[in-house]
Amino acid sequence: MASTQIPTEQWAQVVEKKGGPVSYKKIPVPTCGPDEVLVNIKYSGVCHTDLHAMMGDWPLPTKMPLVGGHEGAGIVVARGELVKDIEIGDYAGIKWLNGSCAACYYCRQADEPLCGEPQLSGYTVDGSFQQYCIGKAAQVAHIPKECSLEAIAPILCAGLTVYKALKESGARPGQFVAVVGAGGGLGSLAIQYGKAMGLHVIAVDGGQDKGQHCLDLGATAYVDFTTSKDLVSEVKQASGEDGLGPHAVLVLAASEKPFQQASEYVRSRGTIVCIGLPANAYLKAPVFDTVTRMINIKGSYVGNRQDTAEAIEFYRRGLIKSTHKTVGLSELQSVFKLMEEGKITGRYVVDTSR
Amino acid sequence: MASTQIPTEQWAQVVEKKGGPVSYKKIPVPTCGPDEVLVNIKYSGVCHTDLHAMMGDWPLPTKMPLVGGHEGAGIVVARGELVKDIEIGDYAGIKWLNGSCAACYYCRQADEPLCGEPQLSGYTVDGSFQQYCIGKAAQVAHIPKECSLEAIAPILCAGLTVYKALKESGARPGQFVAVVGAGGGLGSLAIQYGKAMGLHVIAVDGGQDKGQHCLDLGATAYVDFTTSKDLVSEVKQASGEDGLGPHAVLVLAASEKPFQQASEYVRSRGTIVCIGLPANAYLKAPVFDTVTRMINIKGSYVGNRQDTAEAIEFYRRGLIKSTHKTVGLSELQSVFKLMEEGKITGRYVVDTSR
Amino acid sequence: MASTQIPTEQWAQVVEKKGGPVSYKKIPVPTCGPDEVLVNIKYSGVCHTDLHAMMGDWPLPTKMPLVGGHEGAGIVVARGELVKDIEIGDYAGIKWLNGSCAACYYCRQADEPLCGEPQLSGYTVDGSFQQYCIGKAAQVAHIPKECSLEAIAPILCAGLTVYKALKESGARPGQFVAVVGAGGGLGSLAIQYGKAMGLHVIAVDGGQDKGQHCLDLGATAYVDFTTSKDLVSEVKQASGEDGLGPHAVLVLAASEKPFQQASEYVRSRGTIVCIGLPANAYLKAPVFDTVTRMINIKGSYVGNRQDTAEAIEFYRRGLIKSTHKTVGLSELQSVFKLMEEGKITGRYVVDTSR
Amino acid sequence: MASTQIPTEQWAQVVEKKGGPVSYKKIPVPTCGPDEVLVNIKYSGVCHTDLHAMMGDWPLPTKMPLVGGHEGAGIVVARGELVKDIEIGDYAGIKWLNGSCAACYYCRQADEPLCGEPQLSGYTVDGSFQQYCIGKAAQVAHIPKECSLEAIAPILCAGLTVYKALKESGARPGQFVAVVGAGGGLGSLAIQYGKAMGLHVIAVDGGQDKGQHCLDLGATAYVDFTTSKDLVSEVKQASGEDGLGPHAVLVLAASEKPFQQASEYVRSRGTIVCIGLPANAYLKAPVFDTVTRMINIKGSYVGNRQDTAEAIEFYRRGLIKSTHKTVGLSELQSVFKLMEEGKITGRYVVDTSR
Repeated sequence: MASTQIPTEQWAQVVEKKGGPVSYKKIPVPTCGPDEVLVNIKYSGVCHTDLHAMMGDWPLPTKMPLVGGHEGAGIVVARGELVKDIEIGDYAGIKWLNGSCAACYYCRQADEPLCGEPQLSGYTVDGSFQQYCIGKAAQVAHIPKECSLEAIAPILCAGLTVYKALKESGARPGQFVAVVGAGGGLGSLAIQYGKAMGLHVIAVDGGQDKGQHCLDLGATAYVDFTTSKDLVSEVKQASGEDGLGPHAVLVLAASEKPFQQASEYVRSRGTIVCIGLPANAYLKAPVFDTVTRMINIKGSYVGNRQDTAEAIEFYRRGLIKSTHKTVGLSELQSVFKLMEEGKITGRYVVDTSR
Repeated sequence: MASTQIPTEQWAQVVEKKGGPVSYKKIPVPTCGPDEVLVNIKYSGVCHTDLHAMMGDWPLPTKMPLVGGHEGAGIVVARGELVKDIEIGDYAGIKWLNGSCAACYYCRQADEPLCGEPQLSGYTVDGSFQQYCIGKAAQVAHIPKECSLEAIAPILCAGLTVYKALKESGARPGQFVAVVGAGGGLGSLAIQYGKAMGLHVIAVDGGQDKGQHCLDLGATAYVDFTTSKDLVSEVKQASGEDGLGPHAVLVLAASEKPFQQASEYVRSRGTIVCIGLPANAYLKAPVFDTVTRMINIKGSYVGNRQDTAEAIEFYRRGLIKSTHKTVGLSELQSVFKLMEEGKITGRYVVDTSR
Repeated sequence: MASTQIPTEQWAQVVEKKGGPVSYKKIPVPTCGPDEVLVNIKYSGVCHTDLHAMMGDWPLPTKMPLVGGHEGAGIVVARGELVKDIEIGDYAGIKWLNGSCAACYYCRQADEPLCGEPQLSGYTVDGSFQQYCIGKAAQVAHIPKECSLEAIAPILCAGLTVYKALKESGARPGQFVAVVGAGGGLGSLAIQYGKAMGLHVIAVDGGQDKGQHCLDLGATAYVDFTTSKDLVSEVKQASGEDGLGPHAVLVLAASEKPFQQASEYVRSRGTIVCIGLPANAYLKAPVFDTVTRMINIKGSYVGNRQDTAEAIEFYRRGLIKSTHKTVGLSELQSVFKLMEEGKITGRYVVDTSR
Repeated sequence: MASTQIPTEQWAQVVEKKGGPVSYKKIPVPTCGPDEVLVNIKYSGVCHTDLHAMMGDWPLPTKMPLVGGHEGAGIVVARGELVKDIEIGDYAGIKWLNGSCAACYYCRQADEPLCGEPQLSGYTVDGSFQQYCIGKAAQVAHIPKECSLEAIAPILCAGLTVYKALKESGARPGQFVAVVGAGGGLGSLAIQYGKAMGLHVIAVDGGQDKGQHCLDLGATAYVDFTTSKDLVSEVKQASGEDGLGPHAVLVLAASEKPFQQASEYVRSRGTIVCIGLPANAYLKAPVFDTVTRMINIKGSYVGNRQDTAEAIEFYRRGLIKSTHKTVGLSELQSVFKLMEEGKITGRYVVDTSR
């Protein structure tokens, strides 16, 4: 079943060899199998992962040539014969997990992001940096019609990731969560999700501008690592009457120093959640403290289908604002360039119509 | 309230300066406050912690002079006026947590081992290497009369510690737990507790003798790191039909290599529990795997009062055999010497009557 | 240790025989034991339980004569020798659980409200309808100095009870909770706690005034049982996009019809929490639905010490407004009369100075 | 894809009108869709539900005419084009949940037995009382080749149901679970699963023979309701040193009296799990006790795919013996007759070859 006007060719950004660059060109429009849908992508967020995919610096091989992108929002234009829960014309999102085996130990328990044979959008299968993208119906995100496809694109990966991490942190309403790197794209979303979940967010980042930005988004306190004389004790002081430290910490860029500090200021029995994926990095924590203070260190990846629905629902209710800048899909390489130079603070979104 | 024949002097092993040695001498018998009991210690286990206490090499100061020991089993001979739930003549145990503030964030939630102002037996207060020892009534272990005081001594710390770690691991009946260092004192107890909890234990250690010992205690499989060509894949193969790796790992000696291996073979979404306390050691894990496989690394310390009651109950039912060697309290220094030389495999117990 | 001006006599309301009434008279000021504090009560909330205590219609005997009251807020004026975590001059609250054995299966796990030998304020020990009241130091609520003693009194029981019930419901931020009896005293607090915890509250009660009141307090929707043609389907429709029903229901008055309805509209796998204590009432639910929809029905009682600290902290942050009417302690009998006649909507507080 | 010798006709037992009886006749062999498999059923257990399906006395309509049965064990003989995780020749089981929508709130969270649009074997789709049965590949049970298809049949529903109920009970290794109706088919399995999970089972049933049977299967204690003078106190006494009652109760036949008793003897904070499905029955519990003792009453239905895999794995390890009696499929009506007369204690299995 398909709507009538699907073209046979489309514009896409294609990585043709490891290291890039992307080339903007016409490629065929794919067709969908019995358990798949074809989504006419309108907008796609650009994530650091897309750069890793192009550079090939992660310990996981990509397909090649590759159309990247995994924050694609658009409209369903065709669906396979077995697909019943999504209609032609519905809004849908292509996210990192494009599909999974649906049968293994993880899939049986709704932990499909841990499936050993996943399809990963813009990594092991073609992603959302094209006008027409295939997704397994089971994993496509359902987007309410009242949402802007442009604004919701970054929720499909960045929003989902921080929301999942907050759930994994185990922090309960009324408790404190430190967010390290709170002023960036992921961090800005983490502050808002945290607040909407009844948590008190202690924002940790550098500089006055970021501080104001974090407080405006609803952070309870801001600790500036560029000016703090004793960051560990400042974070603890910000964690409520007892000063025992935040109940959880989200480390958005798991480099060594912030991680070490987190293991000093997190509350005993507290949880440090890592979600960044720098290549070749290591977590390191003192055994004595980890044991005697019963600290919990865990990695959080992307969410499952229910997490996705929940993350979108918080957005739909107007509790989350995504700050992004939109450029044409044709300009993707220049976005990667800014990313490599560390010049991006918010999120870039590409418009596939130009 | 007190039984009539409490002497005024007693034999004890006293650390008089950092670095030791212990001296075997007569000291006064202490008297108990309104919320305390006095226990006539009959037997006490000797733990690696006692050596750390004497050497002063942990980042936590001891009292000095110090009577060490925190696995003391004996008979209540006096109790304070507020004590109602234990009688003169009852069997009781002095364990690592001698007392806590009973009012802080942790104590309010039955996490009193994390109390910021704990009394630690044989560390910040005098412990069980003496004939008469004080314990806060709230924390004294209640030992059923049918248990041997000699055999139960090691349960009060070693047994409790591994039982707590198995609970913290989150592993459910029918799942697999790898125990690294399974052939030693802690490990031997971990195998038995694990089996009694319906878990399948994959024992990891070195040498054929240890292997036979582990299998005799009920381990499902044994992986010998001295002969294994690919330890990671062998542990995974031993973890059931799917070969996805054990659901949890107990690392009894958190040195670097075993810990790294554990983070490779643990099942995605699995938990690595660290319980050893080597001085100045660090945990180190690759960020990429920790995040994308959602691995959970946590420290486990000693159990609370309920954990203690449960660990003892498993023992009382005959499910746990403690293998120990008993010598006189007067010989404690020679036990420490063997410990320093790494020559102890099981647990030593000292008899306070000689 | 005590402040200097504790009188020997005080005003109190005393129940002298089962069925009442209370008599307002002078009685001696009690003195505190080594683990107790004496609190100069300034204000006390009046709870339905106080009426049950006077009438003796619960299956649990009271002391007699009895000073009722278990929502007392005041100032610590004396403390026993073992008390270290509260100072003379501190604000403190006397709540339903005055003390517990601190040693049993429940106390060991921070479930002290389930202790088999509890001291219950205004029930098995004298409570807060007097100017000077004894509390076990372990259980006295710690009230921050910035809080009004008058306004916080109802938080000590009513607030704590609904907060605990919301925790027990298992509902997570972003999920829906129906509150049956939302317009009353407990209900008004439940709406506010729910909202502060990131939950969507569906208020169920009767009448337009109550409806407006509930929406003003932050309820997401209001269902009026006096005008609804199909209450079950209206509650389900109010529970978000999928209409599967609220994830949890708080039944504040467990009478038969509301309870039956709750078991029809609660989401499969959802939880119905009962917190009211009508004498001689029964829960009744169809087996078929309970099983095939995996419904969870549970009773929730008062919170433990940590729940108390958390409930107070939400209040301190200004997220909870308690609407109450204050009269003199001498007028207590007339409050009971209104209560018996079902004429009370909010909470009454008595001022012990008059 | 299909093996070559699938006939076009087969023997089946067909319910042709509400109330029955079944007629043994030849019907066509069905063919499978792209996400389905065809299983050559060798053996099928007979469950009370099959009788309800024939009688039509549940508040859920069946298809008609109907082939009942939902404990079918056999061999995969054909599979649809999308099916990848099961091979022709594999052993497979048809269980109660034949298929689900795979997309709703429940399916997204691995609670597919709660799906609002389920296919139920032998109820809304044809089941295992035929020689060739269709199952959705996602829900078919994977049976290891080393298992007897005859003996494993009852595990697919009865075993799974009690295993799930034990998981839902929240009881941990070392704790006590009372099983009411322990001597019957479900009960016998519950005792064995409980024991394998490290639980202590208190068997409750009537008569000496059943008592011996329960103790032989590994029950810790047996309480005989036909001779007990005070069943409530006997069950409590059997629940360990503290006599506070079992941590959980499985009520296998939720009739009124056993349920009432369970709410008296269950430990405070304990859980009563109901799993029977008598038509038109009600749960009834006193509000006062449920609230002040924080009792948890919950229904448990069948397990999900992971529960199924786990229940089978316990069986495969030899920890569970299923006692059943095998007759020919052609004799099904006589089995129903015995069932109606209450004359069945263990489980009947039908052999589809005769």
